[in-house]
Order: sequence, then structure tokens, then C-alpha cells
Amino acid sequence: MFTHRLTERIKEMENPVVAGLDPRLEYLPESIIHEAVGLHGKTFKAAGYAIRKFNEQVIDVLCDMVPAIKPQFAYYELYGLEGLSALYDTVAYAKGKGLLVIGDGKRNDIGSTAKAYSDAWLGKTNLFGTDVFGLDLDALTVNPYLGIDGIRPFIDTCVQYGKGIFVLVKTSNESSGEIQDLKVGEQTVYERVASLVAQWSEGLIDEYGYSPVGAVVGATYPEQAKKTRQLMPNSYILVPGYGAQGGTAKDCIPSFHKDGTGAVINASRSLVFAYKTKRWSSIYNGENYLEIIREEAVRMKKEIKEAFSEKIEEGELHE
Amino acid sequence: MFTHRLTERIKEMENPVVAGLDPRLEYLPESIIHEAVGLHGKTFKAAGYAIRKFNEQVIDVLCDMVPAIKPQFAYYELYGLEGLSALYDTVAYAKGKGLLVIGDGKRNDIGSTAKAYSDAWLGKTNLFGTDVFGLDLDALTVNPYLGIDGIRPFIDTCVQYGKGIFVLVKTSNESSGEIQDLKVGEQTVYERVASLVAQWSEGLIDEYGYSPVGAVVGATYPEQAKKTRQLMPNSYILVPGYGAQGGTAKDCIPSFHKDGTGAVINASRSLVFAYKTKRWSSIYNGENYLEIIREEAVRMKKEIKEAFSEKIEEGELHE
Repeated sequence: MFTHRLTERIKEMENPVVAGLDPRLEYLPESIIHEAVGLHGKTFKAAGYAIRKFNEQVIDVLCDMVPAIKPQFAYYELYGLEGLSALYDTVAYAKGKGLLVIGDGKRNDIGSTAKAYSDAWLGKTNLFGTDVFGLDLDALTVNPYLGIDGIRPFIDTCVQYGKGIFVLVKTSNESSGEIQDLKVGEQTVYERVASLVAQWSEGLIDEYGYSPVGAVVGATYPEQAKKTRQLMPNSYILVPGYGAQGGTAKDCIPSFHKDGTGAVINASRSLVFAYKTKRWSSIYNGENYLEIIREEAVRMKKEIKEAFSEKIEEGELHE
Repeated sequence: MFTHRLTERIKEMENPVVAGLDPRLEYLPESIIHEAVGLHGKTFKAAGYAIRKFNEQVIDVLCDMVPAIKPQFAYYELYGLEGLSALYDTVAYAKGKGLLVIGDGKRNDIGSTAKAYSDAWLGKTNLFGTDVFGLDLDALTVNPYLGIDGIRPFIDTCVQYGKGIFVLVKTSNESSGEIQDLKVGEQTVYERVASLVAQWSEGLIDEYGYSPVGAVVGATYPEQAKKTRQLMPNSYILVPGYGAQGGTAKDCIPSFHKDGTGAVINASRSLVFAYKTKRWSSIYNGENYLEIIREEAVRMKKEIKEAFSEKIEEGELHE
């Protein structure tokens, strides 16, 4: 089961940080760009080559430190078929290194089509009568706007193949409240969605207390995260918005249970492109980006550990 | 502008039906499957070959009858990189035949990522300093759950390159009300989203009265469609749910304006796999699937024209 594997990995690494692999060409190290363009010109093929190479280096440097990677599909689709090919290769490479892979695709559609997405990314494709795994991700983010019809096929696949989903509940962006904070009686829309996540989790709880139906709650909304943690006690929470989007380590903690499980924090730009940030700019020499990524991962792990201890002392976390 | 091109095409074809290309292998004609497996075995490559061939045949037989095609991304992602390659080829082929292409991807994410999706599917990819078109679709479906941050980049791309989006407002599936029908004060969530679509359209109206910000409203909810038509007077409405999902021709009409513009009706399975339906089963001989698709397109066009006239007579449609 995904939640089982994730819990084990988090405990082993003593780290709940997931590395978001969002490979924008503009942010990649000059040396990789130079090599890619030298081999293939300024083409989509060169983009795919650069992404593949960078991702593999990042995976090598982080695979003994983070439980999972989270590729954001948009940044692969941006580079067309070559980008998508790099996504496939990246996922295979990460899995080979023992990492879990959470696909960030925010897929959503009516039932029959949600089934196709679910088969494509988590389950098996029926290929002329034989079911075969496609990308075989460990988990996928999904959007709840269509209700249970559009979620059920994903849950069925999770149960069948031991996978997980993360349902968007309260997203990290500034305008997330425009729909998610609307008041529906006593609750907001996002609280209602959190309640649905809890309802969809019923009967699917593993021995660690988690269901395959997880949720996304942004670090940028720590007060709301306290509520959603209570509304969805059996769900893993994927916490975006830490770092580049302004969420602090302390802001991430309300999504955890007291034992340190129940949440993973995503760090994309701030970790994987740490060498482009102000914090490391005086040290970056154009070559040492991998050392900086490693250093930043160590720093984040420590920062989150400290924030967690502080919150525990303040008595803010629950079982 | 997309809405301009769409309006012209609908008037030229005298037909608002969009052909949904959702190529599930199980539904493809035996002869194509046989050929594909003969050439490439039971592989993803064979799946891509079969999809490409079938889609091209369908496009040939419908390109002088329908204004646009709507490939559903899920059914291409289902067949991995080979499926996605078939999507790229299908789009290019359709555009070569003068068809508009509406990508059904229901993409959604925070601003910077929505920008990547928008660049990928509608706009241009920055490739080592040069902006180049990727798939260059005419329009894309998007999900509004993240609010304007996640929509703005798409709108900007629409304005820059003359493209369109269709925002999910009221989806055709049974459980769409689970979130979309929640009461927010006097309005429901879907009515609120419809109002946002109208707000996002301000200042972007073309000479036919339409903005690039369209909406999705299912044929399965005709009463709700009356309301959304009024709330979003300047938006094209993409109407799914006709045929296989149970929506009748009459159910589709409330999304139109009185002049016959303002909406397109999607028909996927019921049109493109018409030879698999009861209506045509006695005539289908395993070979004549293209004739049946053509016949069904003619039948649908007539059925919708009649339903439209009836509604006009009943005084149900507005300017």
C-alpha cells in the first residue's frame, strides 16, 4: 500500500520532504543546457535530454534523503513528446533508486474518463486484451470539482494496486479562496471537500491509520490546515507552498500528526533550484549545483524538524 | 480569434456538433486492430498506430460536416507516449483539414504552473530563448477550483494567440452536484463559477459578442443550463453529455442563443462509435463504420436543428 510505503520511507529518512521535479529549462544549470544544445540544437529533443540529465543527477543526490519525488506534469507537457518521454524516464529512474513517485497532474473528469486517467497513471492499460502497467506511479493528485464519480475510479485503482491519490482541498495559491472559501452553511467549500475525503476514506484504513485517499492543503494556509487535519484524520496531506511560495517550515506543521507522520511537504523550486536562490548565490560557482541542492535538503530537513519540535512543545499537535 | 473562427465554422457547417475523439481500443473497428497488431504486435506502438489511423479516417469523413473535434486527453495518455504521439498527429491532421481543435484536458494548477500548461497546449514554449508553438490547440477545457490565479495565464494566452478556454461550470456527470450544487448564500457554487466566467470575460468580447472564456455545462442539466446561459451571456458553452450519457437534443438547446450561436454540443461515443450502438447494429457489417459515422452525424445535425426550431417556437430562447 502506498501509505504504508510512504510512512516507512519517511521514518527511514527521518524526513517528510518530497522533492518537486519541475524542470524549467530557464532554471537548469548552464553546463547541462550547453551539452544538450551542442548535441541536439535548440530543439524539443535537446529540452528532453537536458531535463532527463538534470533529473537523474538530482535523484542521485537526494535519493537517500527524501522519501519521494513529485514531478509536476505541466513542466513535461511544456516540452511536448520529448518532455513527456523525459517524464517517463525520470519516473523509471527514481523508482530504480527506491524513491516513491507522486505524479502532480491534478487530473479530473467524469467517471469513464477518470477511469482512463487512473489506468494510465496508476493502474494498467488494457492493450488488446492484456492489462499492462503504464507509468505505474505510486500516487497522483486529483481535482474534486466533479464529485465522487470522478474520484471513485481512482480509489478503485488505489485499492487494486496499492496506490494513492491526493485530492485538492485547500490549494496554496492566493486566489484559492475564490471558490474554496465560499461559505456553504456552517462550512466552507474546502471544509466540505475535506469531509468528503474523510467519507471516501471509510473502510480503507491501513495498519498505520491511513487511507489511500489523501489531500492537498497548502502551507500558505496554516490556520485552515489545522481544521482540515481534524476533518481528515486518516488522510496523508501533501503540503505545497513551502519555500518559493512563501510558506514557512512552521506553517507546514499543522498538517502533521503528533508522531510525525500524516503529511509530506513538497519543495520544488526552493530545493531543486536552490542554486538560483539568494541563500546560496554567494556560494554557487556554476558547477556546484548538486552540492547546493544536497546542502539545502539537509537545511530543510533540520528546519522542519525544529519547527515540528517547537509545535509539539506548544502542544499544538494531536494524535 | 477562436470564438470568431468557431462562429464562422458553425454557420458554414450549419452544425454545432463537435466530434469527440476518445479512441478506446476496445471500440475500434476489428480491421484496424487486426492491421495494427499485425504490424506491431500487442504493443503500445500498435495502439498508437490504430488510434492514428482511426482518427484520420473519422476526420476525413466528418471534416466537411462538423466545426471542430474534441480529443479527450485521457484516452491518449492511457496509451502512453505512443498514445500521446497519436494525439499530436491527430491534431495536426485535423487542422490540416480545416477543423478547429478543442483539447479536453481539464487542466488546472497554481499560476506559474497554469502558465506552463497554457504555453504547452495553447501558446508557445520557450525553447532555449526562442518561443515556439507546441501542439497549438484552438481551445482547452480548464477546471476552476483554484480560482482566477489558475485561469489568468490561460486567458492571457487566449488574448495573445487568439485561443479559447472552456471553464468547467456544471459538469454532465451524476455526482456533479456534490460540490457544484452546494448553496452559497442565494447562489449555488456552479452559479458562482458562471458569474466568475462572466466577470473574467469583461473587456474581451469579440464582434460576435463572445469572449475567449467559455464554459462547460452538461446536457444532462437543462434547467441549470437556462440559468448559466443568462449568467454568462458572452461565453461559448461546450455541452457534453449528449447521446451516450443520456442528454437529448432538446436538453442541449438551452445553452444556445436565439441566433443558433453560443454553444457547441459534443458527441463522442454516440457519434464516433455509432457503429457500436443499438441504433446502427442491424446495418453494421464490420466494414461500413465510416458510412455509419457519417449517417449518424447527418442524423444528429437534423435532430438538433429540429429541437432548436421547437424551442424557438416555444419562445424559450433569448437573444
